[in-house]
Amino acid sequence: MEKIERQAISAIRVLAAETVQKANSGHPGLPLGAAPVGYALFSKHLRVSPKNPSFFNRDRFVLSAGHGSALLYTLFHVFNMGVTKEDLMGFRQLKTRTPGHPEYGHTPFVETTTGPLGQGYANAVGFALAETMLAAKFNKPGLDLVDHYTYALCGDGCMQEGISYEAGSLAGTWGLNKLIVIYDSNGITIEGDTDLAFTEDVAKRHEAMGWQVLNVDDGEDTEAISAAITLAKKDLNRPSLIVVRTVIGYGSPKAGTADSHGAPLGEDGVKALKKALGYTAKPFELPPDLVKHYAELSADMAKYENEWNRTVKSYKTKYPAEYEEFTAWVRGKAPELADVPELWKWPDKPEATRNTSGVILNKLSDLIPNLVGGSADLSPSNKTYMKDKGDYGWQTPEGRNLHFGVREHAMAAITNGLALHGGLIPFCATFFVFSDYMKNAMRLSALMRLPVLYVMTHDSIGVGEDGPTHQPVEQLVALRSIPNMRVFRPCDGRETAAAYAAALSGKGPACIIGTRQNLPPYKGTGKDALAGGYILDDCADVPNLILMASGSEVEVAVKAKQLIVAANPGLRVRVVSMPCMELFEEQTQKYRESVLPSGVRARIAIEAGSSYSWGKYAGLDGGYVCMDTFGASAPAEQLFTIYGFTPENVAAVAKKVLRNLSKAEKSENGSADV
Amino acid sequence: MEKIERQAISAIRVLAAETVQKANSGHPGLPLGAAPVGYALFSKHLRVSPKNPSFFNRDRFVLSAGHGSALLYTLFHVFNMGVTKEDLMGFRQLKTRTPGHPEYGHTPFVETTTGPLGQGYANAVGFALAETMLAAKFNKPGLDLVDHYTYALCGDGCMQEGISYEAGSLAGTWGLNKLIVIYDSNGITIEGDTDLAFTEDVAKRHEAMGWQVLNVDDGEDTEAISAAITLAKKDLNRPSLIVVRTVIGYGSPKAGTADSHGAPLGEDGVKALKKALGYTAKPFELPPDLVKHYAELSADMAKYENEWNRTVKSYKTKYPAEYEEFTAWVRGKAPELADVPELWKWPDKPEATRNTSGVILNKLSDLIPNLVGGSADLSPSNKTYMKDKGDYGWQTPEGRNLHFGVREHAMAAITNGLALHGGLIPFCATFFVFSDYMKNAMRLSALMRLPVLYVMTHDSIGVGEDGPTHQPVEQLVALRSIPNMRVFRPCDGRETAAAYAAALSGKGPACIIGTRQNLPPYKGTGKDALAGGYILDDCADVPNLILMASGSEVEVAVKAKQLIVAANPGLRVRVVSMPCMELFEEQTQKYRESVLPSGVRARIAIEAGSSYSWGKYAGLDGGYVCMDTFGASAPAEQLFTIYGFTPENVAAVAKKVLRNLSKAEKSENGSADV
Repeated sequence: MEKIERQAISAIRVLAAETVQKANSGHPGLPLGAAPVGYALFSKHLRVSPKNPSFFNRDRFVLSAGHGSALLYTLFHVFNMGVTKEDLMGFRQLKTRTPGHPEYGHTPFVETTTGPLGQGYANAVGFALAETMLAAKFNKPGLDLVDHYTYALCGDGCMQEGISYEAGSLAGTWGLNKLIVIYDSNGITIEGDTDLAFTEDVAKRHEAMGWQVLNVDDGEDTEAISAAITLAKKDLNRPSLIVVRTVIGYGSPKAGTADSHGAPLGEDGVKALKKALGYTAKPFELPPDLVKHYAELSADMAKYENEWNRTVKSYKTKYPAEYEEFTAWVRGKAPELADVPELWKWPDKPEATRNTSGVILNKLSDLIPNLVGGSADLSPSNKTYMKDKGDYGWQTPEGRNLHFGVREHAMAAITNGLALHGGLIPFCATFFVFSDYMKNAMRLSALMRLPVLYVMTHDSIGVGEDGPTHQPVEQLVALRSIPNMRVFRPCDGRETAAAYAAALSGKGPACIIGTRQNLPPYKGTGKDALAGGYILDDCADVPNLILMASGSEVEVAVKAKQLIVAANPGLRVRVVSMPCMELFEEQTQKYRESVLPSGVRARIAIEAGSSYSWGKYAGLDGGYVCMDTFGASAPAEQLFTIYGFTPENVAAVAKKVLRNLSKAEKSENGSADV
Repeated sequence: MEKIERQAISAIRVLAAETVQKANSGHPGLPLGAAPVGYALFSKHLRVSPKNPSFFNRDRFVLSAGHGSALLYTLFHVFNMGVTKEDLMGFRQLKTRTPGHPEYGHTPFVETTTGPLGQGYANAVGFALAETMLAAKFNKPGLDLVDHYTYALCGDGCMQEGISYEAGSLAGTWGLNKLIVIYDSNGITIEGDTDLAFTEDVAKRHEAMGWQVLNVDDGEDTEAISAAITLAKKDLNRPSLIVVRTVIGYGSPKAGTADSHGAPLGEDGVKALKKALGYTAKPFELPPDLVKHYAELSADMAKYENEWNRTVKSYKTKYPAEYEEFTAWVRGKAPELADVPELWKWPDKPEATRNTSGVILNKLSDLIPNLVGGSADLSPSNKTYMKDKGDYGWQTPEGRNLHFGVREHAMAAITNGLALHGGLIPFCATFFVFSDYMKNAMRLSALMRLPVLYVMTHDSIGVGEDGPTHQPVEQLVALRSIPNMRVFRPCDGRETAAAYAAALSGKGPACIIGTRQNLPPYKGTGKDALAGGYILDDCADVPNLILMASGSEVEVAVKAKQLIVAANPGLRVRVVSMPCMELFEEQTQKYRESVLPSGVRARIAIEAGSSYSWGKYAGLDGGYVCMDTFGASAPAEQLFTIYGFTPENVAAVAKKVLRNLSKAEKSENGSADV
């Protein structure tokens, strides 16, 4: 290695250590150990355009071991990729570009938010998958519009998380040869030596999954690292894992120990590091020769975008229609579905919302040519198979149906990767109860506000005979409570159309929750549902009682109203359908008040899910016909009856609520008299 | 194979198919394919006592592919293990012993609830782990009190789920040689051929994880299956995987296709099956020769319990003290912690609840000798390391600290296995936000009401600089909404003691949620907290305003009260601490009314988590100082301020709530005048 390279790597190490030290918080261990990997990758391979983070054909680099963010920011800094010295000095502080873990949207070139381990590995599989799908669609002989690598840097933690195995197995099955995962193998985790909990042969496991595995025994040897990356690129059939043996906390007094992982080195530690590395620049400074070195490397990177622009120019001339389609895909906007009449017309017969969802999804697969997705081995049940759109596979990258296998967690994270890559509008699907398996990846969709569509069917005890392991109870509130996530539980075909229209409006992730069982259609449903909650069945004047419901329980509410009114002819009862609480909350106060007048305290929430969802609408005086226990294995109709989802039970609860309110009113008036 | 064996296997197949057909719901594919595996295992290896499901030293058999329940019930039926013909005929119906998926507690010999794929594999690792821990503790030369195998039957779905990789990797690291996983490899998943999504070499992957792998190429060959099991038992260092090639739906017209997986064969299909197998008995009947055959096999099984009883007798004589300890461990009851004075005494200084939790856990590790557990590589942060209690490992099975590695999902499922096995009181730990990674396993703890303790620290934006990926927001309501799960978020040392006392009372799973940051102690905390919610700081007479809070926000509530009262000397303000909503809900109506009088509408919920938790307590008139957005990366104190967790903001919200209520009252009185 040239001396300047050695110094350049020392600069990365010292800057990262200083960054963590200044914040007095963060993780120096990985940056110190993996600095040569970062240097080799960025200086010799990574094709990005330092001045244009949105250059579409850039290589994607994912720091899956997100706690090593100081390495990422330092690399961005020295390679002139939009992170300044001041940014480094603002590490982990409010409103800076350098949060504790890399956050998508906060920092140029941060391709995805990482930190929860293994997610980045799976996101990277999604990036690589998107690349092959877009390449298959658009590339022409000699004109590769889409042609880039996806790199991920992972640590032992990523390799231990189940999501990385799931994603790795799919990457192998799909033969994603432009995916290159670099394993920063330092043999240390927080609790100590990895042997304590991880004696597995990670290389062999990747071979078992169909990967090429390359080894670099000396993590300081940038030539060897670079040569391995070159070999990885040469494999045209398999993804590659490069196992690099590194020393955590390299150069610091805590080198090789768990202590260097997650705490600043201390001022003395930084001093000792600089001394060990023979590095003398002032804090946060680069010596002039390194400024020059990195400026040259950075300037050199720009050539990739120039090359691509030439390709684009020829492509545009030769294939104008395809080019137009390409730009439309990259823009990524779905059409305005509220304006597509056929989505809103449904036959007047009972139908499961999973079926209407399937019909809509198939219509959308024609309307939205870049809609791609699939299920975690449940497409026949989820009704998510897009007919005549082909099956994605190693030899059929033009297929739009993805087969994720029984791997919910990786599915969601890969779908995040598809959304992050750009060019595609992705969805994924499973049974609603198994949203539990992918919760953290869904949370990351929401944190990044990615336009990911989750289709989840079999939404309640309506699952029936499969029993409580397959019957969601608490999942509605679990997803509703994720910030930025919109959860739709439609009651019929038109509400399902509204759900898709709102979900694909590009405002972050959305879940469409469908039933297994048939539901009747309603006259009052339609575009009103785009408000999230609305009056489905009203009474004259201000109501005495409001029945609020979603999905399959709207039927119970409507029938309960008939029963209640028949028994109490003077009573004014309103039915409110609430397919999406988040959308309802986005409406004006005036609108919400018109649907749920604050003076009306007799409110019953009817939903076959946890009552936690409804407290803020039912209040202290309201009633709950909800599901706060687990279900059971039996035919669905029997379950709805025994758990109280009947008009009769709702009427009984309503009676109690009205009686209590009337009592309270009397006693209040009474005490007012005193 | 003898003819009688062939017929015996046909009987299992036909009974299982009839069971599914009668229910008109269920999964015939696996039972038909794996019947010979079941027969070979049960007839030649499984050491259980058919008349005594609770025989402690029984082999544990886990049907990880829980959808194949018809196989399990049929095996239990023919081997006289407590499932009757009527039970089979009541498959998937209300209140029978044969629910759609195997449910622990519903059916004798169902060792764990399965259905969500991969969970059973990980539970089995927990069973095998428990066996080694108990054996290390109690076995004496020639007297093996604890000495059994754990078998799991897994399908392709289990093998694709990340949790099975995590658990498999741990089993290999731990060298759990008495764990035998049988892989029903039929090459078919719901969406079709496994090659669509799963080309991985499962055998090689297990080798990479340190397992012995054995292959049976013909799933009909019971001799070969049995021989493989025998070989598996002979390996004294490694867990074993037996890959058995089977045909899904064997013998039926749908054999070898995905169609046979999850739908009844139809009456004609069952007929065709019987014809193909040459099996002529009436529905749900066994021919007399098979009744005899199975009765003999079943009777033969009883010998294991007799042998064990002899061992116990000698053991008791020779090691009376150890035997007493053994029976105490098996009884499984933790001591009454409310009576342990030292747990309730804390120095009068600020402390993080993760620290007090760590101190308590260490005290408990002395008080409760069968308390075992660990963290997903975060014990230094979670403070869950039990000093001087050793580290569990292949050569140190007497260690009580478990190192799960960065594998939250398998950790929780393995801990479920430890609890199910009996003899141990297990806990596990991670950062609270990563409860998302293990949600489904936690749900299964709750569904089975297992006494599993989850210790989860870093409970809010109090995490600070690590940022939103590491800051829980929606996790409190996500866990509170799981039926049977108790969630504790204590505000100081004494409340943490109360949390442990209640959590270890044996009434199902519990989560103790601790802070990273210091919290002050309060005078009013103590055993009152055992009620879940209580008055911490009261006023004279009925309050005008109630401030409700948990954990770190109790401090904000107490300070806000001072501020509000200082500004409004006549106002009566109560502070309610709510460390556990589930316990509070278990109290009498009278008690709850005394804490939160229904007439008091001015209530503010203060908690750095989703407001969904509080709707039912704050109601339509209340105010929320909650966290309904993601956090950010910055020092914690700054975050608490910008997100409104300050006495000043609470006072402002209170003012608004009181003003609105006063307005509403006036307008009500006004309209009453009209």
